[in-house]
Amino acid sequence: MNQQDMQQYIENCTQYHATCIATIQHCLGMGGRHASRDHIRLMADCAQICRTSADFMIRGSDLHPLTCGVCAEVCQRCADDCEQMSGADATMKRCAEICRRCAESCRQMAHAHA
Amino acid sequence: MNQQDMQQYIENCTQYHATCIATIQHCLGMGGRHASRDHIRLMADCAQICRTSADFMIRGSDLHPLTCGVCAEVCQRCADDCEQMSGADATMKRCAEICRRCAESCRQMAHAHA
Amino acid sequence: MNQQDMQQYIENCTQYHATCIATIQHCLGMGGRHASRDHIRLMADCAQICRTSADFMIRGSDLHPLTCGVCAEVCQRCADDCEQMSGADATMKRCAEICRRCAESCRQMAHAHA
Amino acid sequence: MNQQDMQQYIENCTQYHATCIATIQHCLGMGGRHASRDHIRLMADCAQICRTSADFMIRGSDLHPLTCGVCAEVCQRCADDCEQMSGADATMKRCAEICRRCAESCRQMAHAHA
Repeated sequence: MNQQDMQQYIENCTQYHATCIATIQHCLGMGGRHASRDHIRLMADCAQICRTSADFMIRGSDLHPLTCGVCAEVCQRCADDCEQMSGADATMKRCAEICRRCAESCRQMAHAHA
Repeated sequence: MNQQDMQQYIENCTQYHATCIATIQHCLGMGGRHASRDHIRLMADCAQICRTSADFMIRGSDLHPLTCGVCAEVCQRCADDCEQMSGADATMKRCAEICRRCAESCRQMAHAHA
Repeated sequence: MNQQDMQQYIENCTQYHATCIATIQHCLGMGGRHASRDHIRLMADCAQICRTSADFMIRGSDLHPLTCGVCAEVCQRCADDCEQMSGADATMKRCAEICRRCAESCRQMAHAHA
Repeated sequence: MNQQDMQQYIENCTQYHATCIATIQHCLGMGGRHASRDHIRLMADCAQICRTSADFMIRGSDLHPLTCGVCAEVCQRCADDCEQMSGADATMKRCAEICRRCAESCRQMAHAHA
């Protein structure tokens, strides 16, 4: 495993964990579909699995491909959801971008060690 | 420190962690003030500090009075907030009760070892 | 999905999260293989994925089969590890039993909704 | 509250959360006092309260001075512990430095809003 890839992966998950938590507050302020149960739940799921998967990697766990695989799938769904709400909303657009980058990073990590 | 009190404390915090997470979903479904940024944030804060404080105690950390003290204060605020939204809403009423019991338990734990 | 099965699943994961955290302290006190990097890391992984998977379920997330699947695999490994260290050690024996029950519960949950 | 100070605070806590988790693995490999129950527990406490306190801040919670105050105290203890084990051990030295910076950052945040 490449040390630089791992570091990048940890940073992507860590950044998206924080972005999710901050964006939940933005979405609650917007109301409507942004503040729906399904969307807030998906972002909360995403924040937590990003944190868990990053922590597995930081510990050097050989089980990280399992959490990376789940993280990739949760992030993909979250990115799609955020993108559909983007429109003129720069916060959602940025959230979707960071999420998509994180999903990509997780997919690579999951496959490199499957 | 009494082993039975500790166990009760851990159970109260653990129960309230779960209740908060479940009640956030209820509140989002209700909309309005229930789904406001301030209320959802307070419940998310409460879920996290309950988990943290319970985990300190499970590890047997002598620093647990610090987390118990914070947990008592966050729970108190959360209980007040939930109570104001109770009315005919049984879910909020139950949430406020569990929260108040958790706050009381935290206060005792914080003072017993201050 | 059966409400009672869900509740049992959440309790099993919650119980094993706490058992892992407490048993890590026991293992550090034992030293030797119990306190090896690999074993402590596996138990820390297990504590975190149990918590994450329980929280997904509490939120009512339809993504929970993903976390349950990972949780089943991490718990299985952890149970095997603990069992090998059981011998006359009642704490490790109890840890292995709770872990195995949690793994079984996760497997059922993962397959019921795959 | 200054946006730049907040951002710096979140980064310090986030960095120390990760440093703690990685350093626990280092300490277990070293054995002896590094791998003692008390030291590993303190680092686990520190990792968790750093994460919690950072998340409170990311959510924009006005309760963050409470978690910052606890975080400052836990970090201070952890930094002292790590420093005593530093000697020729560069990893522990770096851990102590990052921890001390985080403690300082938490103290400022706690007092700025007390």
